[in-house]
Amino acid sequence: MILKIYRYLLVLLLLVAGLGVQHLEADDGYRLWLRYDQISNEEVREQYRSSIGEVVLNDNSDTFALIKEEITKGLSGLLGKDIPVNSQVTDNPSLIIGTPSNSNVISSLDLTEKLKSVGNEGFLIEQHEIDGENHFIIASSTDIGALYGTFHFLRLLQTHKDLQDIAIESAPKIQHRVLNHWDNLDRTVERGYAGLSLWEWKTLPNYEDPRYKDYARANASIGINGTVLNNVNANPNMLTEQYIKKAAKLADIFRPYGITVYFSANFFAPSRIGGLENSDPLNPKVQQWWKDKVDQIYKHIPDFGGFLVKANSEGQPGPQDYGRSHAEGANVLAEALAPHDGIVMWRAFVYSPEQEDRFREGYDEFVPLDGEFADNVILQVKNGPIDFQPREPFHPLFGALPETNTMMELQITQEYFGFSNHLAYLGPLYTEAINADTYAKGEGSTVAKVIDGEVFNYEHTGIAGVANTGTNRNWTGHPFGQSNWYAFGRLAWDHTLTAEEIADNWIRMTFSHEQDLMEPVKEIMMMSREAGVRYRNPLGLTHLYAQGHHYGPAPWTSELSRPDWTAVYYHKADEEGIGFDRTETGSNAIEQYHPPVKEKFDELEDTPEEYLLWFHHVSWDHEMSTGRTLWEELVHRYYQGVEDVREMQRKWASVEGLIDQERYDHVESLLEIQEEDAIWWRNACVLYFQTHSGKPIPEGYEKPEHSLEYYKELEETHHIARF
Amino acid sequence: MILKIYRYLLVLLLLVAGLGVQHLEADDGYRLWLRYDQISNEEVREQYRSSIGEVVLNDNSDTFALIKEEITKGLSGLLGKDIPVNSQVTDNPSLIIGTPSNSNVISSLDLTEKLKSVGNEGFLIEQHEIDGENHFIIASSTDIGALYGTFHFLRLLQTHKDLQDIAIESAPKIQHRVLNHWDNLDRTVERGYAGLSLWEWKTLPNYEDPRYKDYARANASIGINGTVLNNVNANPNMLTEQYIKKAAKLADIFRPYGITVYFSANFFAPSRIGGLENSDPLNPKVQQWWKDKVDQIYKHIPDFGGFLVKANSEGQPGPQDYGRSHAEGANVLAEALAPHDGIVMWRAFVYSPEQEDRFREGYDEFVPLDGEFADNVILQVKNGPIDFQPREPFHPLFGALPETNTMMELQITQEYFGFSNHLAYLGPLYTEAINADTYAKGEGSTVAKVIDGEVFNYEHTGIAGVANTGTNRNWTGHPFGQSNWYAFGRLAWDHTLTAEEIADNWIRMTFSHEQDLMEPVKEIMMMSREAGVRYRNPLGLTHLYAQGHHYGPAPWTSELSRPDWTAVYYHKADEEGIGFDRTETGSNAIEQYHPPVKEKFDELEDTPEEYLLWFHHVSWDHEMSTGRTLWEELVHRYYQGVEDVREMQRKWASVEGLIDQERYDHVESLLEIQEEDAIWWRNACVLYFQTHSGKPIPEGYEKPEHSLEYYKELEETHHIARF
Repeated sequence: MILKIYRYLLVLLLLVAGLGVQHLEADDGYRLWLRYDQISNEEVREQYRSSIGEVVLNDNSDTFALIKEEITKGLSGLLGKDIPVNSQVTDNPSLIIGTPSNSNVISSLDLTEKLKSVGNEGFLIEQHEIDGENHFIIASSTDIGALYGTFHFLRLLQTHKDLQDIAIESAPKIQHRVLNHWDNLDRTVERGYAGLSLWEWKTLPNYEDPRYKDYARANASIGINGTVLNNVNANPNMLTEQYIKKAAKLADIFRPYGITVYFSANFFAPSRIGGLENSDPLNPKVQQWWKDKVDQIYKHIPDFGGFLVKANSEGQPGPQDYGRSHAEGANVLAEALAPHDGIVMWRAFVYSPEQEDRFREGYDEFVPLDGEFADNVILQVKNGPIDFQPREPFHPLFGALPETNTMMELQITQEYFGFSNHLAYLGPLYTEAINADTYAKGEGSTVAKVIDGEVFNYEHTGIAGVANTGTNRNWTGHPFGQSNWYAFGRLAWDHTLTAEEIADNWIRMTFSHEQDLMEPVKEIMMMSREAGVRYRNPLGLTHLYAQGHHYGPAPWTSELSRPDWTAVYYHKADEEGIGFDRTETGSNAIEQYHPPVKEKFDELEDTPEEYLLWFHHVSWDHEMSTGRTLWEELVHRYYQGVEDVREMQRKWASVEGLIDQERYDHVESLLEIQEEDAIWWRNACVLYFQTHSGKPIPEGYEKPEHSLEYYKELEETHHIARF
Repeated sequence: MILKIYRYLLVLLLLVAGLGVQHLEADDGYRLWLRYDQISNEEVREQYRSSIGEVVLNDNSDTFALIKEEITKGLSGLLGKDIPVNSQVTDNPSLIIGTPSNSNVISSLDLTEKLKSVGNEGFLIEQHEIDGENHFIIASSTDIGALYGTFHFLRLLQTHKDLQDIAIESAPKIQHRVLNHWDNLDRTVERGYAGLSLWEWKTLPNYEDPRYKDYARANASIGINGTVLNNVNANPNMLTEQYIKKAAKLADIFRPYGITVYFSANFFAPSRIGGLENSDPLNPKVQQWWKDKVDQIYKHIPDFGGFLVKANSEGQPGPQDYGRSHAEGANVLAEALAPHDGIVMWRAFVYSPEQEDRFREGYDEFVPLDGEFADNVILQVKNGPIDFQPREPFHPLFGALPETNTMMELQITQEYFGFSNHLAYLGPLYTEAINADTYAKGEGSTVAKVIDGEVFNYEHTGIAGVANTGTNRNWTGHPFGQSNWYAFGRLAWDHTLTAEEIADNWIRMTFSHEQDLMEPVKEIMMMSREAGVRYRNPLGLTHLYAQGHHYGPAPWTSELSRPDWTAVYYHKADEEGIGFDRTETGSNAIEQYHPPVKEKFDELEDTPEEYLLWFHHVSWDHEMSTGRTLWEELVHRYYQGVEDVREMQRKWASVEGLIDQERYDHVESLLEIQEEDAIWWRNACVLYFQTHSGKPIPEGYEKPEHSLEYYKELEETHHIARF
C-alpha cells in the first residue's frame, strides 16, 4: 500500500519536475544575464555540487543580506539543489564569503596585504584548505567588495569555469563607473528606444517598484557603481526638494548594491527654481544657493555622488552666459560638493555654430583651462570628437589634460546604430576607443591609461555610459541591446578584457553554452558593429544621418539652421572627391594629437583606411589598398554592409531551436528590419554620392531598386514608420 | 530499497511541489483575471474534476485552435490536472465544445431554435445526458460564439459556480463593443497613465510582440469585439499605406479572437496626406479619395470595422470648416465604407467657446440633424453632457435621436479619477449611467435600452470605452485599474449585470476567494467611486480640475483662453451661493430632457442632492435633507471623502497576508498617495469656496494644514510631481 502511494506520488513528482525544467521555455529577457537556470552539463554540475556543500556568511548588514539572497538564488538555480547557508563552517566543503570584520575564517587567513591591494571595492576568490577540508573563500575589505566577488563567483559557475585551485584578485581600474540616464521627468527618454524611464516619479517616494531593485542588482553584477538619474538636458525641477525626496527613495534601494545616485544639474537652477535674479557663478548669492541646495540634498541622500553638467552646449545654459569660463562655473558646484566628498562631472561636449571644424572645438575650449578646475571636477569627454558615430578616431582631449581629471563618455543606447531595431554589439567600438594610443607620454599611453589615472595620476577617475534601459520587459528593446549594457560594465571594471571574451560570457549567461549556438551568435556579435559602419559610414565618412532623429540616411542635407548639423558639412563630396581635410591644408585638427598619431593621420598613405575620410579630401580615382578606386571601394563597402547583415541573418537562422522561440522570433524579425534599413542606407548613399562622382555603380552589384528622389522622400515617410 | 528510493523521491516531490504551489507567490498582474491557478477549495476542485473527464472539440479553424489552447490551459490550471482533448466522445463525462457544423454531438441535439435566438456571437452552456453519461456542452452557431462560451465556462469554474443542471443562454445585447485607444503614433497615450501604447509601430509589421495576442485574448474573454487603434485626435499618417500594413498585422492577430480593427480618421486626410486641394466633403475628388482609401484598407484588412471621427471638436478639423454639417461629413465616409459593411462612429463631443452653457451643445447641434445620417453611421455620445466627470447626469441626447443610431462612450482611463494613482472602481458609474431612465418612450426607456436599440430600433448599436491599457507590466498601472477594463467589457455584453456582481467576479478571478479578502476588497471597490466624487466634486459640482492635466484641484481658475475651460464657469460660486442654474431662469438646459426628468431637475426640492449644483444656483444657507446648511453639507462631504479613503486604507490593511505581498504593497502605497491627494483636494476646495461663503469650517473638522495660497501654489509644484 505504502509502495503504491509512493509510486503514485513519484509519478506526480515527475510531472511537476517535467513542467519545471523545460529547456527552451519562453524567455522574455527580463532576467538579463542573471538567469541561473540549472547547469545542463551534468559533469560540470556534479563537480560544483560536490565542491560546494554549504555557504558560510554573516548577513549582518544590508549588503550581506543581499549577498545571501543572491548566492542562495544563484546556487540553488545553477546546481538545481538547495545549498544551506550557515554562519559557521560545518564539515562541508564550504563557500565562505566575508570581510575580516564579519568572518573569523577570513580574518584568520593571512590576507591583509592582498586585501589592501584590491582596495575598497575589490575582492579575492581563493581555495583554502582549512582543517583538512577544501573551502572556497570570497574575501574583501568591504561589504560591497564581497558582493562584487559573489557576482564574480556566480559568473564563474554560469560560464562553467573550473574552480580547482582558483586564485583571483580583482579590483576596478576606474573609480566612478556610472550610467548616464537621459531620462526626463515626464518619463520620456532622450535617445531612449526601450520604453519609458524606469523611474516612475509620480508614485515616488511612496511606491517602490520592484524593478528598482532589479536595476540596481543588474548594475552591481557588472560592477557599475553610480547612476545619473536624469537627462543632461536637465529640468531644473530635479533640484526641488520634492524630487530630491523621490530620488532619495531610489538611493535607499540602490545603496546596499553599492550604487551612488547623481543628478544632472541645470546651470540656471538658482534663477529658475531658486528665485534668484541670475545664475552667475560669481554671484555670492548663487554660490550660497548651490551650497544650501547641496546641503539639502545630502540631508536626504547622505552618500549623494554629485552633479553631471551639460553647460553652454546645444542650447543648455552655462557660465559663458555671464562671460565666465567653464572652470569658473564648474568650481562653484564643486566647492558646494567638496565638504560632502561629492564630485562634478562636467561635459566637454561643446561646439558653436560658427566654427570651421567641430572636431577641434572640445580641445580648443578646454586645453587652455587645464589646471583651473577644482580637484573634485572630472571633465567628461566623449570617446570621439564629434558625437558617438559608428566609428570615430579617439578624442584628442585624451592625453591633452595633465592637470584635469578626465573621464570617458560612451554611448550604450544606439542613437547612431539603428536604435533598438538593429543588432549592434558595441564591445568592439568600446575596446577600440579605450585601447587607442594617445602617445601622451610615449607609446603605451592608451586612452585606457589616461582615464584610469595612470598616465597623469588623476585624483578622480571615471567612465560613463549613456544608458539604453527602459520599461520594456527585456530592459533594452532589442534582445541584444543588453549585451552593450553588459559590455560597458565589464570594461568599466576591467578595460583589459577583450570584446570577444565579454561576448562569450554574455552569450553563455544569456542564451546557452551549446557550441552550435555559441559560435554563430558570437560571430554575429563580433561582425555587427563593422557591418553598421559599412552600410552607413564606411571609410571614415561620418554623420550622414537625417537630422533630429539620427535613424536613416540623408547625406544630401545642406540647408539647416546650423551648418554643423548638415551632412554635407561632414562629407564635403564634390566632383573631385570626398572627405574632410583636417591636415594643415585644411582645418589642421590633426595638430591636436601627439606625435606620431598626428603624423599618421597627416599622411594620406599612412592613414588607416577606416579613418581615411575623417582626415583627407580624397580623389574619387585614388587607388586603395585593394586596387579599387576610392569610388569603387566606397560602393563595395556599402554593398558589403548589406551582405554582412544577410550573413548575420543566415547565422541566426542556424540557431533556431537552440534557444527559446520567443527570443528567436524577436531577433529574426528585427534582423529583417535591419536588412531593409541597410539596403535603404546603401542605396540612398550610393545614389547620392554618385551625383558627385559621376561614375557608374560597378558591374556585379544589384542595382538600387529606386531613384535618389525616392530615397529622399523616404526621409519623411519611412522615418515616421520606424520610430 | 525500492521503498527507500520512493521515500527519497517523495521528499523531493514535496520540496518541488512546495515551490510550485506557494499560495502567495508574487504576482505582477500580467495575467489579469485569467489566472487559472489551481482551485484551492478541494471539494469544488474534486467536483469539477469528476464531472469533466475530457474535452471534445475539432480544432479545424483558427478560433477553435485558440479554444483548444484556452480550455487546456484553463482546466489544467484550475483543476491541477491535465484533461485530454479528443475529437470524439469517449466514455468519459465530457465537455463538448462546438457548432452544428463542426460537431456531430452538437448538431444531433435539438438546439436549432435556441442557437438562432442567441445569434451570431451568443452561446449555450448546458448539461446533456448522452448514451447514459452526463456531458457539458458549449454550443454556438459560430466559432467566435464558442470562444465566448469557453471563456464563460472557465469563468464559472474560476468563480466556483455549481455546474449541476446548468443551462445558460447568453448573447450580447449590444453589437459593437469597442475600446477606443487614444494612442498616438509616437506611442504616447493621451490621458494614458499605464506606460506607452501597446502598439510598437516601429517594429510592425515585421515583429509580432506576444503581447498583441494577450491583449486580444483578454478582450475576447470579456466580450469586447472591436478596437480603435489610434487617438481620436488623429494623426493623418494612420491612413498611409505604411501604417495600414502595420495595422493589418495586428488585425491578423486579433481576428481569431473576434476583434475587429477600426481607425480614428483625420477629416483633413485628403488634403494632408492625399495631395488634394481641400477636404471638403462635397468635393467629388474628396469623396473619391475616401472611396479609394477605404478600398485600399480593405485590401489589407478584409474585415476592417470602420472609422471613428472627432470632427470640429477641440481644434480637430471637420465638415464645418467648409460650411458643411456633421451629417454631410459623416455620410461621405459612410458611403465609402458601406459596400464593405464598415461603419462610421461619429463623436457628438462638440462645444464652442462662445456658448452660454456647454451642457446644451451636443443636443443643440445634433438633434436638428436627426434622420440625416446614413444608416451605417453611429453617433458616439459620452455618458454625460460635459466630459467624463466623476458624476454627471445622463446626456440628454440619449432618447432624443429616434432616427440616428446612438452609441455610448465611457471612459475607462481615469482622466478625472486620479490617473493610475487612485483606486476608483467605475462599475457604479457605468451602471448609474446606463440605468438612467430617459423616459423617451415612457418609464423604462433607460439609456441601456436606447443604446441596445430597443427603444428606437436602431440598425447599429454600440458602446465604446476609452482604454486604460499601456505597456505597464500589469497593463493598467494601478492594480485595480484592470477592474474597470473588466467591468466595461462585462457590461457591454450584458448591461443588466450589477456593479457589485462584476466586482465579485473580478476579485475572485484576480485575487482570491477567501471571505476575509473578498468582503473588504469588495467594500473598497464599491465605495471608491463615491469617495472620488466626494473629495473632488460633491453635490453636483463639476470640473474643478486644474486645466490641461485634470489631476488636482484648481477651483479658482478663471482666466483661460476659453471660459468653458475655467472652473468658475462651472461652479459659479459667489457670496449668495453656488451652482449652475440650468432651469428656465438660467440656461434652461433641462428642457432637453423628457418629462418627468425635466420636471425633477427643474425643482430644487425634487433634484437629488448628488445632482443639485448641476442644475441650481443654491444659497449657502439652503437647508439640506440632513438638516445641515448647503455650506455645512459641502464641507461635510469633502471631509467625508477623505475619511472614505482612510476607511479604504484600513480595509486594505486587513487583507495583508491574504494576497501576495507584491500587489499588497503596491496598492498600499497608492492608497497613501490617494489619501494625500484627497486631503489636497478637500483643503483647496473648502478654503477656496470659503472665500465666497464667508463662513467658518464647522467645529469638529480638522483644520486645513495650509493656507489657500499654499494650495494655489501646489497647482504648479505638486502637479509636476504626480504625473
